Amino acid sequence: MSKEKIAIAYSGGLDTSIMIKWLKDKYDAEIVAVTGNLGQQKEIENLESKAIATGASAFQFVDLRKEFVEEYIWKALKAGALYEDVYPLATALGRPLLAKAIVDAALAEGCTMLAHGCTGKGNDQVRFEVTFASLAPHLKVLAPLREWEFTSREAEIAYALEHNIPVSATKKSPYSIDENIWGISIECGVLEDPMVAPPEDAYQITTSPENAPDRPTVVDIEFVQGVPVSLDGKTMSGLELIMKLNETGAANGVGRLDMIENRVVGIKSREIYEAPAATILHFAHRELERLTLEKTVFQYKKNISQDYANIIYNGLWFSPMRHALDAFIEETQKPVTGLVRVKLYKGSLSLLGRTSPNSLYNEELATYTEADTFNHKAAAGFIHLYGLGLKTFSEVNPAR
Amino acid sequence: MSKEKIAIAYSGGLDTSIMIKWLKDKYDAEIVAVTGNLGQQKEIENLESKAIATGASAFQFVDLRKEFVEEYIWKALKAGALYEDVYPLATALGRPLLAKAIVDAALAEGCTMLAHGCTGKGNDQVRFEVTFASLAPHLKVLAPLREWEFTSREAEIAYALEHNIPVSATKKSPYSIDENIWGISIECGVLEDPMVAPPEDAYQITTSPENAPDRPTVVDIEFVQGVPVSLDGKTMSGLELIMKLNETGAANGVGRLDMIENRVVGIKSREIYEAPAATILHFAHRELERLTLEKTVFQYKKNISQDYANIIYNGLWFSPMRHALDAFIEETQKPVTGLVRVKLYKGSLSLLGRTSPNSLYNEELATYTEADTFNHKAAAGFIHLYGLGLKTFSEVNPAR
Amino acid sequence: MSKEKIAIAYSGGLDTSIMIKWLKDKYDAEIVAVTGNLGQQKEIENLESKAIATGASAFQFVDLRKEFVEEYIWKALKAGALYEDVYPLATALGRPLLAKAIVDAALAEGCTMLAHGCTGKGNDQVRFEVTFASLAPHLKVLAPLREWEFTSREAEIAYALEHNIPVSATKKSPYSIDENIWGISIECGVLEDPMVAPPEDAYQITTSPENAPDRPTVVDIEFVQGVPVSLDGKTMSGLELIMKLNETGAANGVGRLDMIENRVVGIKSREIYEAPAATILHFAHRELERLTLEKTVFQYKKNISQDYANIIYNGLWFSPMRHALDAFIEETQKPVTGLVRVKLYKGSLSLLGRTSPNSLYNEELATYTEADTFNHKAAAGFIHLYGLGLKTFSEVNPAR
Amino acid sequence: MSKEKIAIAYSGGLDTSIMIKWLKDKYDAEIVAVTGNLGQQKEIENLESKAIATGASAFQFVDLRKEFVEEYIWKALKAGALYEDVYPLATALGRPLLAKAIVDAALAEGCTMLAHGCTGKGNDQVRFEVTFASLAPHLKVLAPLREWEFTSREAEIAYALEHNIPVSATKKSPYSIDENIWGISIECGVLEDPMVAPPEDAYQITTSPENAPDRPTVVDIEFVQGVPVSLDGKTMSGLELIMKLNETGAANGVGRLDMIENRVVGIKSREIYEAPAATILHFAHRELERLTLEKTVFQYKKNISQDYANIIYNGLWFSPMRHALDAFIEETQKPVTGLVRVKLYKGSLSLLGRTSPNSLYNEELATYTEADTFNHKAAAGFIHLYGLGLKTFSEVNPAR
Repeated sequence: MSKEKIAIAYSGGLDTSIMIKWLKDKYDAEIVAVTGNLGQQKEIENLESKAIATGASAFQFVDLRKEFVEEYIWKALKAGALYEDVYPLATALGRPLLAKAIVDAALAEGCTMLAHGCTGKGNDQVRFEVTFASLAPHLKVLAPLREWEFTSREAEIAYALEHNIPVSATKKSPYSIDENIWGISIECGVLEDPMVAPPEDAYQITTSPENAPDRPTVVDIEFVQGVPVSLDGKTMSGLELIMKLNETGAANGVGRLDMIENRVVGIKSREIYEAPAATILHFAHRELERLTLEKTVFQYKKNISQDYANIIYNGLWFSPMRHALDAFIEETQKPVTGLVRVKLYKGSLSLLGRTSPNSLYNEELATYTEADTFNHKAAAGFIHLYGLGLKTFSEVNPAR
Repeated sequence: MSKEKIAIAYSGGLDTSIMIKWLKDKYDAEIVAVTGNLGQQKEIENLESKAIATGASAFQFVDLRKEFVEEYIWKALKAGALYEDVYPLATALGRPLLAKAIVDAALAEGCTMLAHGCTGKGNDQVRFEVTFASLAPHLKVLAPLREWEFTSREAEIAYALEHNIPVSATKKSPYSIDENIWGISIECGVLEDPMVAPPEDAYQITTSPENAPDRPTVVDIEFVQGVPVSLDGKTMSGLELIMKLNETGAANGVGRLDMIENRVVGIKSREIYEAPAATILHFAHRELERLTLEKTVFQYKKNISQDYANIIYNGLWFSPMRHALDAFIEETQKPVTGLVRVKLYKGSLSLLGRTSPNSLYNEELATYTEADTFNHKAAAGFIHLYGLGLKTFSEVNPAR
Repeated sequence: MSKEKIAIAYSGGLDTSIMIKWLKDKYDAEIVAVTGNLGQQKEIENLESKAIATGASAFQFVDLRKEFVEEYIWKALKAGALYEDVYPLATALGRPLLAKAIVDAALAEGCTMLAHGCTGKGNDQVRFEVTFASLAPHLKVLAPLREWEFTSREAEIAYALEHNIPVSATKKSPYSIDENIWGISIECGVLEDPMVAPPEDAYQITTSPENAPDRPTVVDIEFVQGVPVSLDGKTMSGLELIMKLNETGAANGVGRLDMIENRVVGIKSREIYEAPAATILHFAHRELERLTLEKTVFQYKKNISQDYANIIYNGLWFSPMRHALDAFIEETQKPVTGLVRVKLYKGSLSLLGRTSPNSLYNEELATYTEADTFNHKAAAGFIHLYGLGLKTFSEVNPAR
Repeated sequence: MSKEKIAIAYSGGLDTSIMIKWLKDKYDAEIVAVTGNLGQQKEIENLESKAIATGASAFQFVDLRKEFVEEYIWKALKAGALYEDVYPLATALGRPLLAKAIVDAALAEGCTMLAHGCTGKGNDQVRFEVTFASLAPHLKVLAPLREWEFTSREAEIAYALEHNIPVSATKKSPYSIDENIWGISIECGVLEDPMVAPPEDAYQITTSPENAPDRPTVVDIEFVQGVPVSLDGKTMSGLELIMKLNETGAANGVGRLDMIENRVVGIKSREIYEAPAATILHFAHRELERLTLEKTVFQYKKNISQDYANIIYNGLWFSPMRHALDAFIEETQKPVTGLVRVKLYKGSLSLLGRTSPNSLYNEELATYTEADTFNHKAAAGFIHLYGLGLKTFSEVNPAR
């Protein structure tokens, strides 16, 4: 009988390296290591040889960047999805796509098990496993870090040395970092004290506001039906646009976030994020919605945004709820076309202007000049009926 | 038979000045002019003599500042009330209190009619009239500006001159401005074009970020049950605290807002606001909530915030809905006690730290060090049941 | 120059009959009378000759029934739209379609004005006028009943006699009735006292529960993606299915509704409705959703239902908000396929069974027999993390 | 050193009886058995001697009925809490109170552990354990049924016989039943097939509609601030009122519920409920709210009802979220005073009338007689502004 095969989410780091060996031994199984490119800057060279050297029988490197931007990031942007009003959900958006890539590899290679390298107290284990359950409910899921014997980094290193597993020589960062094109998350070390401001070395890509240029940078962002299509007048792909905005934003100290957030697993954690492009694009997109969305839709969508963000954060990307909210959101985005001009300056974002062929701002109605076409006399009847229920209530309940 | 009496909201400006004369003639009535102090900086001297000279038979000046802070502003702050996520509702909060003061004066003076000086396309007419209907449903309400014959400022001035009504000699600002301690709103002129950035002269109190100091200012704000009670370690009254924060914020270019907003009367308008203290306090308050509110309450309250903001904006302060939401909010604020440290720098706000005796951030649960007390093994069972519904759905509906 | 033309919503009743003459005289205009068939039982014969005799220059009779069922009623059913949890929105759904038919006629005939026969305190004026504004914002809208000189039915009859307008000889009902295939609304007379139970003569189609058959009737209703497609095993058109269910329901005393409802214009009114088919179909549809919708979607959709019902009731059918909610709802209905068996008995509805190829009820998971496949041990970990936030809260805030 | 003590939720049934022995042996501990009276009809005699005979060292019987009605049931009634719009939450409301009684006993007796007799797939384990974690986070919680060795009822009986544990001689019902004064839940057996209608023997207290009296029964229920205070004109305690209504409702076939519901633990189950009093009181209470609540409050509270029901169902009674929602609800109930007249007839409920000193139904505004005081002309202005946003949208986005 042929051996079992396990597809694993492989990053090349210490945890997933020793996971290859540990799973291989424990299950007497072949290991298929899968790495997805979501735009992380971290070295992704030599991963194949490293994986094989560590004991994997196969390695797949999948470039997910285009799909990530077009099928995940743009959906979240159109939704206005910021978890607890702050976090643009970079890691949270990347996980289901990565999990899908692993499922695809597993099905292609005939694997019967799936494994990830997340711990038992984070959100990512939930995102991996719920996605696995949605896409391949028949496959068994393993989470070695929740059950293996290693209780410290040192124990892991000892195991690696013992089994000739290549370990990076670079000194470990005092922080735990996850990165993709939509943002970076930074945890651990001194950041675990919520009264300590993040030291400068915690930030990976952004300049501090104090060190940012003394003159503002202005960017023009054009959207078509809610999707950014050009920067400063130059049409470009989503990937290019995000990379360019990450660069410009980071240089101006824009996109640093520091929050206490509520995890799926019942605890509060303190997280630092850097997300220049996400911050700028969410800001610009919402401003364009102010101009082009009908009032009820604009206000209603705010609640949808929170719900959509929760779905992403909570690992429920592949769910009928997400599909239903997407349908709502897509419908709202039809008029969200136009240009937004944003000023970046020493950590702050401000708005210089917005314009749209679908603008609902009607200067003739809004103006206080003689060009005014608004029917002022209509207001008397309006207010009379608008306030009639409250007036009746007051007559009946005078004590209030 | 004695004459009718009309209580009017009087500011000393052109509109409400000629309103005194116009109403007096039209209704052959005595006029009781009422001015409320909500912390506006604008000259409020000589109002009494001016009102009398213009034809009023009585004048009342009511200092509403303490009540405004404690019964209106703090409630809105605890609620997290930002209209369409941006506007701290300065004018909108002031109107119902002003309207209440006018009703009180009217009842004390035996008036049978109430009048305000708002136009027919703004929100303030709604706020005045709905409050009047709630508090004194039996009194008749007049809105001269919606029906009188003057179609331009020039016509109003001509009428004033003709009737010896004192008119300010100062050149009219190109903007229409409303101001109280919680913020300033600025409209009209070039601001009516949403693609034009506000000229510097539009701003009344804030320094531009570019001209703000090159070194950051740090403020420590302490809250007790959601209410700010001290600044930089000094206990002070709400009024002092807001005035002080307005000053510090304004000096650092903080609190400028520029938005397209949806009015009650069915149009979009473009508004500029300056609200340094409100901006800083809402930011700090929300950060403290992140630390002290249980997850469900934190996320649920976000929706309540929007609904509460709408109630204020829409003129429904004196309504059973506002009372019911207040009861909810008060209950949530019990643990919101602690200190937030905020950095102000060239127009941007950032967080340096937060701490609370009621902090729900538990470093022992959250840490990734060996002090970790979190039960990692619990996660397997958790995720299994958490994702079970979705797994079942996927098995039955595999196409997705 | 040619005369103005006015398209009017014509029913053949007294109000719209004298409206023809009154508008014709007042505006020196040609009148295009339009009647839509929404399935009302009331005589719709001789309408053309009557309209022409009354002074109309053209008459259109439009059969809207198929469109009404497929594009309006089914959408509302899938949405679960019951206004204030009770009213299936028969009249409210019919108005926008009728208004659209009038706009179509007006555009075809070159009219410049539109008119309806609603009073100033009802909801229907709002539904007509908002639809007119959405579909033909350039046309002028007239509402003669809000402004004409007749203050009583007697005055209207006198005018009719004077101008040779044919008036029905039948004695007027003590009630005001509106009817279409989705339901009947009954107002006025003794019903205006909310402590008076509706007399039997108020009901137009339903048998009283006491007079209904002593043996229950069972109906099997089959749905495909949320739409009813067969009754008792017989595939039929939507129109047939509704007519058949109205008959069966009415015979069993099912579908009588009595409510105090909140109108758009700020007052509460007391309404009696008869809607047998709507009542049965909403009940059956929701039961099928219990079986086939994933939990989050099922619970979330409840709020959407209320919002959707409000949109219909409030006259906002032709709005981007309705389109966005429709997109959400359509997406949710994909698995809502199956059969529901309902028992009708002396005014009550009860459920005998439901089954679906997409059923998410998994007997192997749910059973308490030995066939149980549920992982009971998973619960410990689940509950630990599920309650962890609350436990932490309790430790920090012990007073509660 | 003294022995450990365990407080257990004891019912006298097979599971909790052998639990006493099993826990006593496994932990070498003393057992404190606690039974709460929530109004169940089931025999509660001889429980003490039975518990002691089985091995408990102490027994407490706590009459929770008054507290249950006044602090739990009335809150849920005022909230309008029906889980998934149907289930009045009888068991779900009883669990936290029972868990609280057990914690109280445990603290009084110096116990260090708490135990319940729930299985691993139900909701009740969650309700017990989350309440335990909230009220006594320092005590250890045991759930023997999730981990012990018995895999069938037969194995449990064998264990009981072996250890001389008294076992009831009565034949086990084919159903699993839980009961308190607010309702009864019935599961298992043939009910596990959702296409099978409940056999008559599944129902414990209600007459079938077919066997109910041929003449209707009318009940008058009076409420003060949302709480029922009298029945048919007779003031009585909450407990009496509920018992009386259970009897009357049951005799008329009212209060049978059959639903597929979504459990906390990720599965759908099929439940039968009998809840005559709860069904009648929720119906009557909501009708009184229609008359006395201001429109916004009435509609908003609908969403709160669902959220509140979920909190109860999900075991989160002792949570800051429930307290915050309670504050909201209490505030809304101030005007909910008045009388509702309900007709019970062969399984159906209908409304005969409602009246209140705080009625917001204003016949003078609502009437279509000459007594009408509504300002019809106000409607033109109202509709103009009400529809203005949509009109603007249509002009800009004509394709729709």
